[in-house]
Amino acid sequence: MGSELPTPADTVATLGEFGLIRRVTEGRLQPATTLLGPGDDAAVVAADDGRVVATTDVLVENVHFRLDWSTPEQVGRKAAAVNMADVAAMGAMPTALLVGLGCPADTPADVADQLISGMWKEAASAGAGIIGGDMVTADNLVISITALGNLAGRDPVTRSGAQVGDVLAVRGRLGWAAAGLAVLGRGFRSPVAVVGAQRVPEPPYAAGPQAAAAGATAMIDVSDGLLADIGHIATASGVAIDVRTELLVVHQRLIDVASALGADPRHWVLTGGEDHALAATFPEPAAVPADWQTIGTVRAGSGVTVDGRPYEGSSGWEHWQ
Amino acid sequence: MGSELPTPADTVATLGEFGLIRRVTEGRLQPATTLLGPGDDAAVVAADDGRVVATTDVLVENVHFRLDWSTPEQVGRKAAAVNMADVAAMGAMPTALLVGLGCPADTPADVADQLISGMWKEAASAGAGIIGGDMVTADNLVISITALGNLAGRDPVTRSGAQVGDVLAVRGRLGWAAAGLAVLGRGFRSPVAVVGAQRVPEPPYAAGPQAAAAGATAMIDVSDGLLADIGHIATASGVAIDVRTELLVVHQRLIDVASALGADPRHWVLTGGEDHALAATFPEPAAVPADWQTIGTVRAGSGVTVDGRPYEGSSGWEHWQ
Repeated sequence: MGSELPTPADTVATLGEFGLIRRVTEGRLQPATTLLGPGDDAAVVAADDGRVVATTDVLVENVHFRLDWSTPEQVGRKAAAVNMADVAAMGAMPTALLVGLGCPADTPADVADQLISGMWKEAASAGAGIIGGDMVTADNLVISITALGNLAGRDPVTRSGAQVGDVLAVRGRLGWAAAGLAVLGRGFRSPVAVVGAQRVPEPPYAAGPQAAAAGATAMIDVSDGLLADIGHIATASGVAIDVRTELLVVHQRLIDVASALGADPRHWVLTGGEDHALAATFPEPAAVPADWQTIGTVRAGSGVTVDGRPYEGSSGWEHWQ
Repeated sequence: MGSELPTPADTVATLGEFGLIRRVTEGRLQPATTLLGPGDDAAVVAADDGRVVATTDVLVENVHFRLDWSTPEQVGRKAAAVNMADVAAMGAMPTALLVGLGCPADTPADVADQLISGMWKEAASAGAGIIGGDMVTADNLVISITALGNLAGRDPVTRSGAQVGDVLAVRGRLGWAAAGLAVLGRGFRSPVAVVGAQRVPEPPYAAGPQAAAAGATAMIDVSDGLLADIGHIATASGVAIDVRTELLVVHQRLIDVASALGADPRHWVLTGGEDHALAATFPEPAAVPADWQTIGTVRAGSGVTVDGRPYEGSSGWEHWQ
């Protein structure tokens, strides 16, 4: 059964738990770090330096994603990406994902297949494999992913190491997912570039270990918005962080979309979440890797400012809304 | 806010995501294996022998637990226990849990507090800590837990290593949770011993590494019922397993409860799930640790028999019902 394609009539209920678990695992290529893959009570993953990085995130339909805006494969990619971005933000490379999937019993098996296929694609793009999972009936679609990672002997880069005099730099997209959300929210499906960014983020996974190796003092992934997330660094480190708008690169495509919607593209860059760029502090400008963009400085004090002043406007969002 | 007790009016929504995350972590004692605890993008856990065991399970309200049958603390203990039993079944000791919690926005904060408190108690009982979590709004209460574990240099004990001539042994309760379910299903709340076993299993965590050290060739935790679960060993190992009923110990309390309900206590022992005992095969009777109970033999062939014959009756259950 496991190797046959589901028919349109198949649901997760008719396939059964074990049929679905076979679909997660059969014919997938595990990375060398997967010492024992799925199918037993637990999996075993290499943790060469004697430590493992671990993080978990839960995504709920109509809270964190919409199946009328994204394909199941895009949702799967996004769910994997948000977790692996957290691993990268510690300075580690993702090695493995574990997936908990709750879905209504009448969910088409094809939807579960595509979700899992998307997770595998995103995992493979970062060198990780899916090593375990559990699937249960639930009233709505809930995806819980745990990502594991490898520090390769480096110290983890936490949020609390920023020092007065450091510089702030970012790597990855900022404001793109917010622009996509604005477009989708008005009923449009293009431009594809920003809508695609909302559907599937592109975290710069390798930039996490790169920043760690370059001496980053603090790092975070930008999930809730740049100002909100560097605010976590400021609080944890006991410092103030100032962002200089003249250093912010606002991509022409964001300017175009904002112009069409009557929006402020810089606001998207400063406050837009879900792009999962990395923001890190470095001890000196010369330490910032070439493909990172320096956008601010670490100062004595507390809180986050933009050009020396508190930013006027929303600086992120909480999930309990 | 984090150190104040919630008022009865507080819900997960009024506390907010960050308030709840503080409740998960504040004032908890992490084991020495937690190198970096919760509060950053990810945690870091010791994996001394260069490997980590990982498994995930999802529990859904009214599918896997009922809040009219169990307190939130009992549900939290059970959710942690079912995952850590999977770690033990590989021959590893649990080191860390990551918790994904989806709950309706109007869930009282006190319920979330008690759930998490129960998870911490169970984790601590096995020497593990809760190192990360995520909390989101969902239509119903969904608990997703990932457990990590340490093999301490031993090979993992899989389901596939049983050999013809091995003996089958178990450690831990069998049939108690099924008896409790039968009692609760008829509207009773006692006897406390079996009802308590249904609410909170007592997996023999240390028996997993003990069996591995004693040379167990295959192992599984009994989550779906003894016959169903040793069936997984038989299939994965390409062997037949025969259970001898004269070797099965049926506790007097199960006999008493079965007598009162007109049920067959041996059926509970053979097919009852949710006790999370450990079942393992050993190369010879002398290898079975003293506190394990030898109950059968591994033979050439396939499938599971009871006293040499197929068991007449249900041999487990699937989750998609």
